[in-house]
Amino acid sequence: MDLHNLGVIAAGLAAAGAAVGGGIGNGVLISQFLAGMSRQPELESRLLSRMFLGVALVEVMPILSIVFAFMLMGK
Amino acid sequence: MDLHNLGVIAAGLAAAGAAVGGGIGNGVLISQFLAGMSRQPELESRLLSRMFLGVALVEVMPILSIVFAFMLMGK
Amino acid sequence: MDLHNLGVIAAGLAAAGAAVGGGIGNGVLISQFLAGMSRQPELESRLLSRMFLGVALVEVMPILSIVFAFMLMGK
Repeated sequence: MDLHNLGVIAAGLAAAGAAVGGGIGNGVLISQFLAGMSRQPELESRLLSRMFLGVALVEVMPILSIVFAFMLMGK
Repeated sequence: MDLHNLGVIAAGLAAAGAAVGGGIGNGVLISQFLAGMSRQPELESRLLSRMFLGVALVEVMPILSIVFAFMLMGK
Repeated sequence: MDLHNLGVIAAGLAAAGAAVGGGIGNGVLISQFLAGMSRQPELESRLLSRMFLGVALVEVMPILSIVFAFMLMGK
């Protein structure tokens, strides 16, 4: 490795942000899916499909950040 | 170790982000599993299977971040 | 210790992330155990066993981060 390769720090920051955003965002989202499912069990399949829509939307930015991490690691 | 090995700072950042995202995400998620189970105890097995689906989705980004931490530590 | 040993900063970051993730995650999780137990006291033992399952899942990433902290401290 060459000295002063700041790209690796940038990659670490981007990966950390992706983990925080994806982990907490999905956790809060799916927790309310479980709450709704325990309130109205017959709605489970509809809630599940909406939950996956939510997971996709939550993951947009974390996935972008992981892509950034890969790009920055190579710098 | 060579001086100025910035990869270790990047690894520490990525590991910290993974811990925050995985810990808080799973905590919020499983807390609502407990709430749903106390509301409808007969739904426990179905809620548990959905909870594990949620844990898997929550862990995607933290696990990626841990993988980044390993990669960056070797840089 | 040699000067400019960046591994100690990385170890501190990883340990901090583990503390935040494990602390808040377990706090939120066990708070809902208490809420569920106060709702249905006769479910206490089943809720407790599920809570310990949840604590184990929450602690996965923080424990990994602590392991990273030990590894990085030696770098």
